[in-house]
Amino acid sequence: MSFTAPVAEQRFVLDHIVGMAQLAETDRFAAASPDMVEAVLEGIGQFAAGEWAPLDRSGDTVGAKWTDDGVVMPKGFREAYQAYVEGGWGTIGSPEEFGGQGLPYALATAVLETLGGANMSFALAPTLTVGAIEALTHHGSEEQQRLYLPHLATGAWTGTMNLTEPQAGSDVGALKTRAEPRGDGTWAITGTKIYISFGDHDMTDNIVHLVLARTPDAPAGTKGLSLFLVPKYRLDEEGAPGAFNDIKVVSIEHKMGLHASPTCVLSFGDNGDCIGELIGAEGGGIAAMFTMMNNARLNVGLEGVQVAERATQRAVAYAKDRVQSARAGAASRDSVAIIDHPDVRRMLMRMKAQTQAARALVYYAAGQVDRANLGDADAKKRLDLLTPLAKAHGTDLGCEVADIGIQVHGGMGYVEETGAAQHFRDARVTRIYEGTNGIQAADLVGRKLSMDHGSTLNALLAEMREGSQGEALIALIDACGEVGRHMLGAAVDDRLAASYPFLTMLSVAVCGWLLEREGRAIDDSDSSDFAKMKRAVTRFYGDQIVPEALGLQASALAPADALYAIGPEAFAA
Amino acid sequence: MSFTAPVAEQRFVLDHIVGMAQLAETDRFAAASPDMVEAVLEGIGQFAAGEWAPLDRSGDTVGAKWTDDGVVMPKGFREAYQAYVEGGWGTIGSPEEFGGQGLPYALATAVLETLGGANMSFALAPTLTVGAIEALTHHGSEEQQRLYLPHLATGAWTGTMNLTEPQAGSDVGALKTRAEPRGDGTWAITGTKIYISFGDHDMTDNIVHLVLARTPDAPAGTKGLSLFLVPKYRLDEEGAPGAFNDIKVVSIEHKMGLHASPTCVLSFGDNGDCIGELIGAEGGGIAAMFTMMNNARLNVGLEGVQVAERATQRAVAYAKDRVQSARAGAASRDSVAIIDHPDVRRMLMRMKAQTQAARALVYYAAGQVDRANLGDADAKKRLDLLTPLAKAHGTDLGCEVADIGIQVHGGMGYVEETGAAQHFRDARVTRIYEGTNGIQAADLVGRKLSMDHGSTLNALLAEMREGSQGEALIALIDACGEVGRHMLGAAVDDRLAASYPFLTMLSVAVCGWLLEREGRAIDDSDSSDFAKMKRAVTRFYGDQIVPEALGLQASALAPADALYAIGPEAFAA
Repeated sequence: MSFTAPVAEQRFVLDHIVGMAQLAETDRFAAASPDMVEAVLEGIGQFAAGEWAPLDRSGDTVGAKWTDDGVVMPKGFREAYQAYVEGGWGTIGSPEEFGGQGLPYALATAVLETLGGANMSFALAPTLTVGAIEALTHHGSEEQQRLYLPHLATGAWTGTMNLTEPQAGSDVGALKTRAEPRGDGTWAITGTKIYISFGDHDMTDNIVHLVLARTPDAPAGTKGLSLFLVPKYRLDEEGAPGAFNDIKVVSIEHKMGLHASPTCVLSFGDNGDCIGELIGAEGGGIAAMFTMMNNARLNVGLEGVQVAERATQRAVAYAKDRVQSARAGAASRDSVAIIDHPDVRRMLMRMKAQTQAARALVYYAAGQVDRANLGDADAKKRLDLLTPLAKAHGTDLGCEVADIGIQVHGGMGYVEETGAAQHFRDARVTRIYEGTNGIQAADLVGRKLSMDHGSTLNALLAEMREGSQGEALIALIDACGEVGRHMLGAAVDDRLAASYPFLTMLSVAVCGWLLEREGRAIDDSDSSDFAKMKRAVTRFYGDQIVPEALGLQASALAPADALYAIGPEAFAA
Repeated sequence: MSFTAPVAEQRFVLDHIVGMAQLAETDRFAAASPDMVEAVLEGIGQFAAGEWAPLDRSGDTVGAKWTDDGVVMPKGFREAYQAYVEGGWGTIGSPEEFGGQGLPYALATAVLETLGGANMSFALAPTLTVGAIEALTHHGSEEQQRLYLPHLATGAWTGTMNLTEPQAGSDVGALKTRAEPRGDGTWAITGTKIYISFGDHDMTDNIVHLVLARTPDAPAGTKGLSLFLVPKYRLDEEGAPGAFNDIKVVSIEHKMGLHASPTCVLSFGDNGDCIGELIGAEGGGIAAMFTMMNNARLNVGLEGVQVAERATQRAVAYAKDRVQSARAGAASRDSVAIIDHPDVRRMLMRMKAQTQAARALVYYAAGQVDRANLGDADAKKRLDLLTPLAKAHGTDLGCEVADIGIQVHGGMGYVEETGAAQHFRDARVTRIYEGTNGIQAADLVGRKLSMDHGSTLNALLAEMREGSQGEALIALIDACGEVGRHMLGAAVDDRLAASYPFLTMLSVAVCGWLLEREGRAIDDSDSSDFAKMKRAVTRFYGDQIVPEALGLQASALAPADALYAIGPEAFAA
């Protein structure tokens, strides 16, 4: 099935949720005129549909292969990636001084959504490159920026994030990879990293690994970590890729999905010849990593939007095409397309609504990135608060929508030929990587709630309450306020035990508020299919999905002793 | 990871939910003494853990293979199946006059749960055989029963259900497979059937296909369908498998999971030499098929229990073993097993609770089968009402629990080596086959609600309300009553549009009522791990899961016009 970029919807959300016109009024984003935005959305839509979408299936069935010479991508990926670089699609949001176009982050978000909607595995390569750009832009030396950023900004080289090690999954403080000074300002890197997405591939001339490692005599835990720039090939005097930097691909994972995204085990410095450069200050690894990571978290939330959009398009096409059974209660006994059966239509409406909710949430957060970059301190705080919501709820919705997509297909959804199953398998990891969704919930009720004693949350809730009309939505916003106050006074265990239900409630409240706003932006006289669908979706979300989230309040207030009244051994009983 | 049959829990549910002691007071089930029940549960637990569980992984990675000579099962399956037949495990619930043990259906349900917990793909073979036994017991001729039932009762031959055809998925009335009289009382069968689980394999000497087909001049739609007995090998004069019956395996599906369960496309009579016998009356195919299907629906609900139990055991073992990060807020900075982190423990508690809820629901329905077989007409009606709940909610929970199981494993959950991903992939089809869960919801608000103008539902709700104490549970039961009354007066479209949320609400209410009953059955003085866990689970379910279902009330009362205000074309906008 072909993929069509949802240009009208993206444009609408950029206009009414992000406030693109407001951004374009600033000097920095003056280039983001309506014409430019339209041209970018249309252009990437055509590119992604034409070049990347056709590779989605072979990416799954053939997959990236591990060989003695490193990772080999399936046929066509190298060319399609080069076309992406040459088309300048990597440069949208990159800094102008390094060859980028410096357009709003929110617009770059829409571009990345379209790439990933076309081919989710493939879009992970640019996603991670953006993280590397952010880290170097904020923490790199001038020399590092000059040598690396122009290549990363275009996507000519890709970037990776190297955090996880076998003994340290989510526990970054337990990392063991070592960096020893070589006496010339550079560092010898040794250690093994796992779960490195696009840790190796054959699409570009170089790969820029950003590696968390421990320097000699560094303190234990996260404070002893520094971030290193470790290219696959060291740069020669002209800044071109030169000597191999002793980074071995030990294996790639056999995953349930995302087969065209090679997940590598990388061994650094097996032969004592892996050289890295420190990024920022020694011991400043975690701060620099969070610069990458927060960005990456939003973009993983965006993967939820990507897969939801694609799964919905596929399910709608199938349901319009597949004719089966007469409609119950109808006069005619002729079989109808299954989209006309009520429960199928309910599933499709839910897919549409959850996809649009996820997009509103993630784009809204992306708009806060732009506002923060313009110096708005409140936007920065709101972004910090919303990041765990965008990551966790965005990916929860991506998985939910892909799951419903299988159901719409019936038996055909379970056989691989249809493609619905691939989305379901691909989507599942998004709730795990870049900090599991449980860790996002812990971040919300911990750092994000505590950072200012709940005032960022309360300001958001007050603005939401002021701007909302639906009875259930107002009740949900009030319930979030009540739970938030409870959380602030609760013991750590109680907060954490209830963190996930709270994250979901709050996310639905934010989505409900944003979708109400979208609904109001539709003119009453507009009789286009887009307008009709937007009215239906916003009504469905407010009437049916918002009330569901109210059902989580009991869990969000439940104490931890419900879980700790028994010991671990009883769980095996 | 090894599998351990949950014998204590099964015994407890048989005692307190099914009421095994009551059943054993009857002449028919006098053999079902506590000692016998214990021996059966322990015996099948040892057998399944020792013989079937070790093949679960190779069943997934190797899978059933399609060859020119038919389907070849992975190494070890034939022997493990023969051991099952020789151990007599197939005979538990089969009729005594044909070599079965005639024990309660609820006990056979526990046996099948254990087999499928050990190896879900594999257990589909016995599951379908039970359906064939039911159809022949109720609709077969004496001769058919004499020739086939002894072999099916032991499992020496397996059975299949042949409904679906390429042009007719859920629409049974559109079937085209033909049966022409051969003049000697037998019929020539021609046609193609798809999605035939264990439609071919190399584990037994014969396979008994039950095939829905259309006789000449039969009316259109479901009334023109008859059920035929079509063995893979026709029986010779001694009743042993003889001539090949011209049934060709055209292909097997490439599925997302359940790889050890070959899903066949079967072509009957390509060479004009496929002979079938009519089962029951001509035109009585649908009635006979529902005899198989209702039983199969309960057993598919049971597959939800199977996979939930296995996924939970795996996740608990992993979470007790995997040490990572210190506990937030704790004095010690030592890393702990992840089961000690609040959100992980919440996930595990939810897995335990949903698994026990699914088991209570399915076993309770199985107990109604036994009561109905003893002549209790109200039990038969209650069984009819509960069957769509057991199938749909049981499988929804199986999928939910398998999904949480991946999350507990973190990154390890997404790589195939762990096994958590297999459960997630295996489970997904259960919400589709034997009537999609959407069709179950339609059955609930259609046939099952209308059959007696809601009186069976109201009787159940009244009994539940009388026997419940939790505030949220009572509110949920009342809400179900309100929605049920609304449904009875609502138009067909409105009923169907809200059918799924209603099915879920009602299922949770039934589970909540049953789990409260389980909680009360635990003696206050009992300090065993089992008792502690049961108290924690029943509390968690009542305090956290029951309130969630209240959040569905708005959807269950929402009118269809929320879905039909727009046309199909707007869904592509």
